[in-house]
Amino acid sequence: MGKIKYELIKNNNGNENVRLGRLITNHGTFETPLFMPVGTLANVKTLTPEELKACGSAVVLSNTYHLWLRPGEDVVNKAGGLNKFMNYDGPTLTDSGGFQVFSLAKPKDISEEGVKFKSHIDGANLFLTPEKSIEIQNKLDSDIAMSFDECAPYPASRSYIENSMRRTLRWAKRGKNVFNNENQSLFGIVQGGEFEDLRKESALETVRIGFDGYSIGGTSVGEPKDVMYNMISYATKYLPKDKPRYLMGVGDPIDILEGVSRGIDMFDCVLPTRIARHGNAFTKHGKMNIKNAKYRMDFTPIEDDCDCYTCKNYTKAYVRHLITSKEVLGGRLLSIHNIRFLIRLTENIRKAIKNDCFDEFKNEFIKEYKNKH
Amino acid sequence: MGKIKYELIKNNNGNENVRLGRLITNHGTFETPLFMPVGTLANVKTLTPEELKACGSAVVLSNTYHLWLRPGEDVVNKAGGLNKFMNYDGPTLTDSGGFQVFSLAKPKDISEEGVKFKSHIDGANLFLTPEKSIEIQNKLDSDIAMSFDECAPYPASRSYIENSMRRTLRWAKRGKNVFNNENQSLFGIVQGGEFEDLRKESALETVRIGFDGYSIGGTSVGEPKDVMYNMISYATKYLPKDKPRYLMGVGDPIDILEGVSRGIDMFDCVLPTRIARHGNAFTKHGKMNIKNAKYRMDFTPIEDDCDCYTCKNYTKAYVRHLITSKEVLGGRLLSIHNIRFLIRLTENIRKAIKNDCFDEFKNEFIKEYKNKH
Repeated sequence: MGKIKYELIKNNNGNENVRLGRLITNHGTFETPLFMPVGTLANVKTLTPEELKACGSAVVLSNTYHLWLRPGEDVVNKAGGLNKFMNYDGPTLTDSGGFQVFSLAKPKDISEEGVKFKSHIDGANLFLTPEKSIEIQNKLDSDIAMSFDECAPYPASRSYIENSMRRTLRWAKRGKNVFNNENQSLFGIVQGGEFEDLRKESALETVRIGFDGYSIGGTSVGEPKDVMYNMISYATKYLPKDKPRYLMGVGDPIDILEGVSRGIDMFDCVLPTRIARHGNAFTKHGKMNIKNAKYRMDFTPIEDDCDCYTCKNYTKAYVRHLITSKEVLGGRLLSIHNIRFLIRLTENIRKAIKNDCFDEFKNEFIKEYKNKH
Repeated sequence: MGKIKYELIKNNNGNENVRLGRLITNHGTFETPLFMPVGTLANVKTLTPEELKACGSAVVLSNTYHLWLRPGEDVVNKAGGLNKFMNYDGPTLTDSGGFQVFSLAKPKDISEEGVKFKSHIDGANLFLTPEKSIEIQNKLDSDIAMSFDECAPYPASRSYIENSMRRTLRWAKRGKNVFNNENQSLFGIVQGGEFEDLRKESALETVRIGFDGYSIGGTSVGEPKDVMYNMISYATKYLPKDKPRYLMGVGDPIDILEGVSRGIDMFDCVLPTRIARHGNAFTKHGKMNIKNAKYRMDFTPIEDDCDCYTCKNYTKAYVRHLITSKEVLGGRLLSIHNIRFLIRLTENIRKAIKNDCFDEFKNEFIKEYKNKH
C-alpha cells in the first residue's frame, strides 16, 4: 500500500507527445491512456461495480462535494473508505469539490480563505477551503485525491484568470500541507484559462510544489474546441514525463483523441451516462438517438461489432422501447454501451500507440465518427 | 413446444388443500407454489433477465395493456415474441389487460361487446374486447395468456358482481373461441366478488368452458384480508386438481402463505419492486424502511442470512445512501432483495410441503414477520 506510480512505457514513434503508460495503484495496475466513468454519489448511475469491470473500467471517479453533503465523509470513512463503501475493488479518484462549488452551488463568495456558497440540496450555508477539501478526501480514502482549485469561467478577463490561477497555486500548497493519508495520492491542477503564459506559469509552479500527478482544469467550460486543445498543449509541455496527466471532465471521443495526441493519460466525464439517460448511444458513426422512429422494428444491436453486454443481448427496438417508455433499464443498458465504447476507444488508442500508428488511428476514427449514417 | 402441463406432486399431509406441483412449460419446468415478478413493459423495473434468474425467478409476467400501447404487439411479434424481445429464456405470462383498463384508464364504458376507455398516456380513445385481448396476447406469444375479465371494484352490490361475473364468463368463451396460438396456454379467471355462491358459479362455469389453468381475480381491490382469503377458498374448492391455480396481483408474504394454504400455486405482484423504489425491504421481521436514520452507519447487510446479490455485497448504510440520494441503483438493489425474498419464501414453502409441515412453517413465519425489530 502506498502512493500511485506512473511508468511511461513508450511514446508513439513520430508523435512524441503521445504516451503509453502504466498506472500502478493500491487496487491494481492499469495501462494508460484510460477513461474513468463518473460515480458522482459513490455509484456510476444505475450500474454495479461488476458491470463497470465488465466494461473494462479501471479507475472510478466520485465527487467530493456530493459525498460531503450525502452521506457525509464520516459515513464513508466508517465504512472503511470509498472502495469498501461502494464495494468496488478497483482504484477510485475523488475530485476536490471545486468544480461543483463553482457550477452547482450559487451564489458563491470567493475569498483567499475559501468559498462560501449554498448547498444545492437545501440552501444551507457552506464553506469549503483547500484544507477542508483535503480533509474530506483523506477521509473518503480514494486512491487519488485532487487539490482544491477554482474552475474559472469562460470567457473571463486575463486579470481574473491570473488572480484566480495564482490563488489556486496558494490553495494547492495549503492543501498539500495538511494532506494526511499515506495510501492516497494527491494531484495538482493546472489552471490559467486560454492564456499560454498563464498556463505555463501554473504548470511550472504546480510542479514546483510537487504532486503525484497533474490535472488540466478549466476546460470544457464553454470554450471553443481549438481553445481547449491549446489549453492542453500549453500545459502538458511543462509537466514531468514520469507523472500521470489527467484532463478533467472530458469524455467526447474526439476530445479524448485530441487530448491523447497532446500527452494526456487520464480522462473522466459524465457524458456516457448522461447521454444514455436521454436515449443517446455512442457509435463509430457518431451519436445515435435510439428514440428515432426508424429503430422501432430494428432488431439488430446498437453496434454489430460491439462486445458490450447490451449489444450482445438486446436490440435497438428493445432499448428504444425501454427509453421511450421511460424504463430505467433503458438508460442502464445505454450507459453500459457508452462506457464500454469509450473504454474500448482507449484500448484501441493504446494498441495504436504500441504499433506507432496513433495519428493514423486518430484520423481514421474521426473521419468515420463524423460520417453519420 | 406446446401447452403447459401441471403435475401435482403431493399435498401437505394434514392440510390437503396445500399443493406441491410442477409446471412444465416450453421454457423449462418449475416447482409450484411459485412467485412471478412483474415486468410491466417487458422488463422487471431496473433489472435484467440474468438478475431475475439469479433471484431464482421462473415465470415473469408482462402487462398486455401496457405492451399494446407501447411498443405495440406487432413490434413484440416481429421480434419473435415476448421472450426474444426482452431476451428472457424463462416462461412468460401476460395478463388480459382487464385489470389495467379497470384501474388505470378512466373514464370507461363497459358494454357486452367490450370496454371503451381512454389511454392513460395520451387520452386516445381505445376499445378492448375479449377477442382483441386474445389477439394481442397471441401475438405477444407469452407462454401463458389470460382471459379478458372485468376486475370488479370492492365494495360493489351483489347484482353488480353477478352481472359482471356472468359477462366475464361470456367474455371467457368468446376469447377461447378466437384463441389461435398452439404454443401458448390460456387461463380462465374466476370472479364473483365476496359472494360464495357467485364464486362457486364462476368457478364451475369457467371450468366447464375449459382452460389450461385457472386464476382467481377480483382480489386485492380494497377488501379486508379475511374477505380476500374467503374469496380464494370459495373458488379453489371447485377447481380441478390437475390444473394450476393462480392468484392474481397478490405478493404480500402473509397473503402468499394464506393463498398456498387454500390451494394456490402461482402468485404475482408489483409489490417487491414498487416498495423497493420507496426504500422498503422485506425482512423476516416485516418491512424495513431503509431511509430510517438509524441505518446511516449500519454497515451490515439488510438481512445477515439472505443469499441475494444485494445482501452479499452491500450494507444498509450504502443502500440507504443511494435511496436517500435518489440514485436508481438503490431501488435496483432493493428490488433484487425483495424479489429474492419472495422467491425464497416460496422455496421454503415447497420444502415445508415436502416435509408435510406447511402449517407449522406458515405459523412460525407469520409470528416472526409480525414481530418487528
